[in-house]
Amino acid sequence: MNDETHSRPARSNRSGGRAARHAARAAKLSDDMRPVRAGMTGGRYKPLSDTDVLKIHEAALTALETIGLADAPPTGVEILTNAGAILGDDGRIRFPRALVEDMLAIACKDLTLHGRDPVHDLDLSGQRVHYGTAGAAVNMVDVQGNEYRDSTLQDLHDAARIADKLDNIHFLQRPMVARDIADNLEMDLNTIYACCSGTTKHVGTSISDPSHAAECLEIAYTIAGGEDKYRERPFVSMSNCFVVPPMKFATESCEAMEICVRGGMPVLLLSAGMSGATAPSTIAGAIVQACAECLAGIVYVNAIAPGHPAIFGTWPFDLDLRTGAMTVGSGEQALLTSGCAQMHAFYGIPGGATGGAADSKMPDMQAGWEQMCTNVLAGTSGCNMIYEAAGMHASLLGFCHESLILSDDLIGQALRCVRGIEVDDETLALDQMREVCIGTADAPGVGHYLGTDRTLSHMERDRIYPTLGNRMSPKEWAEKDKPDLIENAIARKEQILATRAAARFEPELDAEIRARFNIHLPA
Amino acid sequence: MNDETHSRPARSNRSGGRAARHAARAAKLSDDMRPVRAGMTGGRYKPLSDTDVLKIHEAALTALETIGLADAPPTGVEILTNAGAILGDDGRIRFPRALVEDMLAIACKDLTLHGRDPVHDLDLSGQRVHYGTAGAAVNMVDVQGNEYRDSTLQDLHDAARIADKLDNIHFLQRPMVARDIADNLEMDLNTIYACCSGTTKHVGTSISDPSHAAECLEIAYTIAGGEDKYRERPFVSMSNCFVVPPMKFATESCEAMEICVRGGMPVLLLSAGMSGATAPSTIAGAIVQACAECLAGIVYVNAIAPGHPAIFGTWPFDLDLRTGAMTVGSGEQALLTSGCAQMHAFYGIPGGATGGAADSKMPDMQAGWEQMCTNVLAGTSGCNMIYEAAGMHASLLGFCHESLILSDDLIGQALRCVRGIEVDDETLALDQMREVCIGTADAPGVGHYLGTDRTLSHMERDRIYPTLGNRMSPKEWAEKDKPDLIENAIARKEQILATRAAARFEPELDAEIRARFNIHLPA
Repeated sequence: MNDETHSRPARSNRSGGRAARHAARAAKLSDDMRPVRAGMTGGRYKPLSDTDVLKIHEAALTALETIGLADAPPTGVEILTNAGAILGDDGRIRFPRALVEDMLAIACKDLTLHGRDPVHDLDLSGQRVHYGTAGAAVNMVDVQGNEYRDSTLQDLHDAARIADKLDNIHFLQRPMVARDIADNLEMDLNTIYACCSGTTKHVGTSISDPSHAAECLEIAYTIAGGEDKYRERPFVSMSNCFVVPPMKFATESCEAMEICVRGGMPVLLLSAGMSGATAPSTIAGAIVQACAECLAGIVYVNAIAPGHPAIFGTWPFDLDLRTGAMTVGSGEQALLTSGCAQMHAFYGIPGGATGGAADSKMPDMQAGWEQMCTNVLAGTSGCNMIYEAAGMHASLLGFCHESLILSDDLIGQALRCVRGIEVDDETLALDQMREVCIGTADAPGVGHYLGTDRTLSHMERDRIYPTLGNRMSPKEWAEKDKPDLIENAIARKEQILATRAAARFEPELDAEIRARFNIHLPA
Repeated sequence: MNDETHSRPARSNRSGGRAARHAARAAKLSDDMRPVRAGMTGGRYKPLSDTDVLKIHEAALTALETIGLADAPPTGVEILTNAGAILGDDGRIRFPRALVEDMLAIACKDLTLHGRDPVHDLDLSGQRVHYGTAGAAVNMVDVQGNEYRDSTLQDLHDAARIADKLDNIHFLQRPMVARDIADNLEMDLNTIYACCSGTTKHVGTSISDPSHAAECLEIAYTIAGGEDKYRERPFVSMSNCFVVPPMKFATESCEAMEICVRGGMPVLLLSAGMSGATAPSTIAGAIVQACAECLAGIVYVNAIAPGHPAIFGTWPFDLDLRTGAMTVGSGEQALLTSGCAQMHAFYGIPGGATGGAADSKMPDMQAGWEQMCTNVLAGTSGCNMIYEAAGMHASLLGFCHESLILSDDLIGQALRCVRGIEVDDETLALDQMREVCIGTADAPGVGHYLGTDRTLSHMERDRIYPTLGNRMSPKEWAEKDKPDLIENAIARKEQILATRAAARFEPELDAEIRARFNIHLPA
């Protein structure tokens, strides 16, 4: 952009042209004028009819009432049976539908997931849509070397630092495992440290063992400056695989969840069935089972602490039935996820599902179509939390920094679709059409819309422009040495990682944390 | 796949495992059991509310009534004013709303677009979805050389031959211009020859000048074996840019259209405004104008020949307002296209729009996300004809054979989304869930769904598997020398082009055509 300006911004319909456009762009837009943002409302894509939604709900209630869930820990059995669930001779806990309905009534509806910086708070009410990372990849994708290697704590921290800089990545759930830390407790603690010191956005993490829960809460309290401060604005939530589908509680995870709920930590109730293996092979059936399991989770959490912040985490994954391998980049996956999102809206409670992960090993064309398919359908279906939306490859086995960076563009376009089409007298544009086509006796129509008020004044508000996505003509592209998408993503990564992380803890706090916990990242 | 089989296919719930899956796959599926196909019904994505649809319709009628269209040819003025349109002193033709409504009532609704082979006939009734190529690219994308070069007649013919082999490419509208033919009439004739001799799917073409129309009809009649045979099953349609937005008829194109309509050729009424330049910059406004223009086209065609097969071709394109360059891979484009599709459904007439083109110069990650975004939203919005859905790059300036091949996978996944979620007693899977989780006293549940009847019997019907898309684990991927998506697409292209084109004309017919027209392709 050059810096030529008019002394007064050109707003006349007749002025048009380059200079006016430049002037319009020179005015810095306030945040509320950005074309897309976190928390826009989706829901115009409804893969299920209203009748289908009721059938799925009814089937889930029947499953809870007649099949129930096995393997609750003794504490869970007590909590659930005290609430009204029934322990059968077969060890399965069954849920009368009245109990489920009562718990849905008191469940947390208007959940805010806090960022360490309030500017990143996420409002999960209604069908507001947010995109972020998640997962437990064990590999880092080395794009330059075209290979996979073990992921490390530094990789995780770098992912957090990159996500912190990307407008369309709204939260950071731990996307990969720090495999360079042998001790599991130290891994859990360092994961929280590496994420929170890399971004002030909301952080999700997992706690691998109930015996780690107290210390994980402790490090979160410490970062917050005390338990009371954390409880006021809990910026770290727990991603909890509380079930082992089909229809079994994950005993230890439930124990960890109980501690975290009591410790004031929001919880993602994550049911990760695989359609065709641990969940029915039909899309409808996988959604039924995921809903049944998450409803059991809602009863569990609300029986411990009524209204405790919990996310309905129906994450059914797709399976390639030819090979038995997981697949997350398929059309079936997009249907699983968006069908679940419609159930969340039906229940009126905050929900999340997987979206935007690729099966492809590298950030290639396949990765692009896979990531967009689930991301745009999950968004337009109004999913509150779209997890694994960025950077995820190899059916969740690899995480890629360059792909994370490119996802910011990809998700930006998906968000534009979520924002949808505004229809009102101004946008219908009849006046503009008349002016441009006919005009007046003094000023006949110019025959194009380049210089109209609306075009000029809304060019930044109505449209989202890619950062690395390339829209040049072939001629310009050749003249500019054929910019390469991946090379540019690498350069952007290096640029971000070369700067001091804005989210870094103040030295005093950092010293306090390091005194209490064995932090593996260099100070 | 190995060839181990059971003497009797394993169908028992308990057998499960590899052998049973292999046996199930060995049974060849009939066409109606394929997971996706042409003409599946979309429409579950509705970017517009019902009120919005009515507002857009109302605005389009008002635009036709008060602004009207300029530049109709004298023949068109006569046709339109005879039908009830009003020629103003300003030379613009205005359309009373009763006229528009009357013509909508008699317009062709249940249109079949024929293939030269009836197996490729396309039923455009309701919200049945079809994907195909289109455009007028002037460059061929050379993936191996990372460059653009002039497109040729051979490139076009090769594109037809490739499209012929791809299940998820349902029609071939001419995607690129044969720049090696200097004479425009010869170009038009050779375009029809190159397309029809490459594929037996429906072919769309454009006719650049009214003086070419008679000969273009003639070559189509010749290929059909006579005018009567062609009129019975018109397998070539005319893509006609009958307007120059905003709200002007394209005088010569209208003249060509009149001839083709009288000659029995189905016509795509193509309004290709650019939102922000030749159409309003707002998405709603661009849709209004496109609808107004296409409604004028519907009046025009039906005034010539009531019920003549015509496609409502609202093709508003997006513009990058920073640079004034066209962009077709944006979220805004997906909204333009799917909003138009919803209007087609409202009018109840067959419609088409642009979808699936990329701004990216090469088949990279950007191309993947751009192509999927518009393709999957256009499909789920129920667009009858999704044009430019495959192979299109550089904002329509380049066509790429490798990308066309990869689009077959991409569109396959989009079609799976169009198919949607079946909800019935079987798919809800309560019986399966009970059997797997609990079972009976004699046969307790196995705890997984791998071997259930539904999983085994529907593994090919319920899921679509990619051809070149790679779902390997990182380990397998490394062991198999890291298959590269683009290299595999190149190999597939070479394999297709090394075989004799199945669509080639019989020698006698070919000789007849070559005797009458100057065909530039070698015999």
